[in-house]
Amino acid sequence: MNILICSTGSRVKMTQYIKEAVKSTGGKVIAGDSDPYSPALFAADDHVLLKPVDDENYMSSIIQACKQKEIDAIIPLIEEEVPKLVKNQSVLDNIGVKLATSDQDLVDVCTDKLKTYQYIDQLGFPGVPTFSTVEETLTLLHERDFDYPLIVKPADGKGSEGVWRVEDEAQLREAVEKVGHSIIQPYLKDREFGIDVYIDLISGQLVDVFMKEKFKMVNGATDKSVSVNNEELVSLITSFVEAAGFTGPLDIDCFEWNGKYYISEINPRFGAGYLHAHEMGCNFMEYIVNNLNGKENQPFEKIQYPEGIWMMKYSEVMLRKIDSKDENNKTS
Amino acid sequence: MNILICSTGSRVKMTQYIKEAVKSTGGKVIAGDSDPYSPALFAADDHVLLKPVDDENYMSSIIQACKQKEIDAIIPLIEEEVPKLVKNQSVLDNIGVKLATSDQDLVDVCTDKLKTYQYIDQLGFPGVPTFSTVEETLTLLHERDFDYPLIVKPADGKGSEGVWRVEDEAQLREAVEKVGHSIIQPYLKDREFGIDVYIDLISGQLVDVFMKEKFKMVNGATDKSVSVNNEELVSLITSFVEAAGFTGPLDIDCFEWNGKYYISEINPRFGAGYLHAHEMGCNFMEYIVNNLNGKENQPFEKIQYPEGIWMMKYSEVMLRKIDSKDENNKTS
Repeated sequence: MNILICSTGSRVKMTQYIKEAVKSTGGKVIAGDSDPYSPALFAADDHVLLKPVDDENYMSSIIQACKQKEIDAIIPLIEEEVPKLVKNQSVLDNIGVKLATSDQDLVDVCTDKLKTYQYIDQLGFPGVPTFSTVEETLTLLHERDFDYPLIVKPADGKGSEGVWRVEDEAQLREAVEKVGHSIIQPYLKDREFGIDVYIDLISGQLVDVFMKEKFKMVNGATDKSVSVNNEELVSLITSFVEAAGFTGPLDIDCFEWNGKYYISEINPRFGAGYLHAHEMGCNFMEYIVNNLNGKENQPFEKIQYPEGIWMMKYSEVMLRKIDSKDENNKTS
Repeated sequence: MNILICSTGSRVKMTQYIKEAVKSTGGKVIAGDSDPYSPALFAADDHVLLKPVDDENYMSSIIQACKQKEIDAIIPLIEEEVPKLVKNQSVLDNIGVKLATSDQDLVDVCTDKLKTYQYIDQLGFPGVPTFSTVEETLTLLHERDFDYPLIVKPADGKGSEGVWRVEDEAQLREAVEKVGHSIIQPYLKDREFGIDVYIDLISGQLVDVFMKEKFKMVNGATDKSVSVNNEELVSLITSFVEAAGFTGPLDIDCFEWNGKYYISEINPRFGAGYLHAHEMGCNFMEYIVNNLNGKENQPFEKIQYPEGIWMMKYSEVMLRKIDSKDENNKTS
């Protein structure tokens, strides 16, 4: 079984984890990226240069790579590529390539924060209230338990770019005018949790959950976190996952505010903080390889890892002689 | 010989390099930081919690740590701490602690970009012209070979915070008014080089030079670079270092613009890109340990490393059970 991971960039550890899991099957991991100077390319068994995710030829470069390298499955690693890949699921099906993520309708829910909240709310779970107009927001403030400060941010943005924190109605109106197409949320962040979830691609059942409190973010990725075993949070996540229909790896963000938990974001892929889960024995790569080999994983029973273990990231270096001309010709 | 490295943060590789060099002397590396969740603390032989660099008790925590851990020398790693440490050189001398950096007057030159340029210029070397007033800048534009765009930035800032790029005199005047106490420089950056230099602490002679072209910066640190062997650049650096009076490790930034080289910044300490030099055999840690043991290093003869080798950083993780209460009591 050959697995393509795309937009590998500097995700050397992720590449090593997948390689380790695939090794037992006699298969290979092929790393893809548009940048020939991406260290993760050299951590895989083989690599291939792809077009950038925003290039019109991105999908054709993926398909060409799948044929050339006899790929059986793709594990997407970055936010932007998941919607593009699921949109082309039938094309990938035709060449026998499976996708280790959720179905298109659920991926669509995840890529739009307004839809994410509405979906969580409709299923009866606590989401971070999210609105697109000042009027809806003012109604919320009257009817429910929330108050200023509020957060205003671009509806299609990610990370903390262009985020406004507003303290009253005048500031709210000003921010919405400045940001344009925006979403508005109450600020519900006493503590922030990142939750790694794996749902069996065959049975659709929850297989594993890893919970960590996030302490430091660098460039939108978790830099320091501590393992958590919280009954209320694990119960919220297991019942949410059962009610929703996701499959494969999920990276869920939750806030604790005034003693209650709120689901903030759902990413239908591995998060940058998965390294913590993996190093503590939650080996999602093995689950994926089992599934791709037609084997169901055991359903989740209980948290097995110890609490209070810190994950701290630091820089490792890879040295390599790279001939960019050769590299650029490789996929042409 | 026991060495204290302070503000180690996530500099795990640096800590490992120093530890390796000190091992042969039977000494220890003690890592210090104010944050008990700094991974480099656990990469050293021992660690100690210090006060933050901007805390009024920073120096007393350093002195206490030096006495407690029987420290023979300090290797500073971050920009902010070098001036504080050299200012207290006599206090450190009194307790028998050496500092692996340059003298205070030269450190002062490095921490002020206007002084840096004036110093380089007075010695007769090409610096990036740097001015503090609009009038001086306009005179430069008339008299010399430079033109817009110009860069306006806070005189005491670092990195790329509050940096303006201006295209004409009106924009220049506006930027200077907005920034306040600012410096003004022409934009001379076709290519950017990071040069690691070691000057013998005993003989004052140049020991080693490593040159890399920088390709990607993340949070102000080099993320990707390629080794360079450029005769003109090595000649500029060797004659500059001979004329100036620095000692210990230096991290020099140079720009190439229109085929000429300009010295932009001098940091009297290890740069974040030193990992590239070290991995390619320029072992400054050995030179430091030799010097601290009273042994001179061989003077520099020629570049020994191969050209065209890429350094690419990626995230490694460290897992650790940390009891913050114990840690916080450690230095009290």
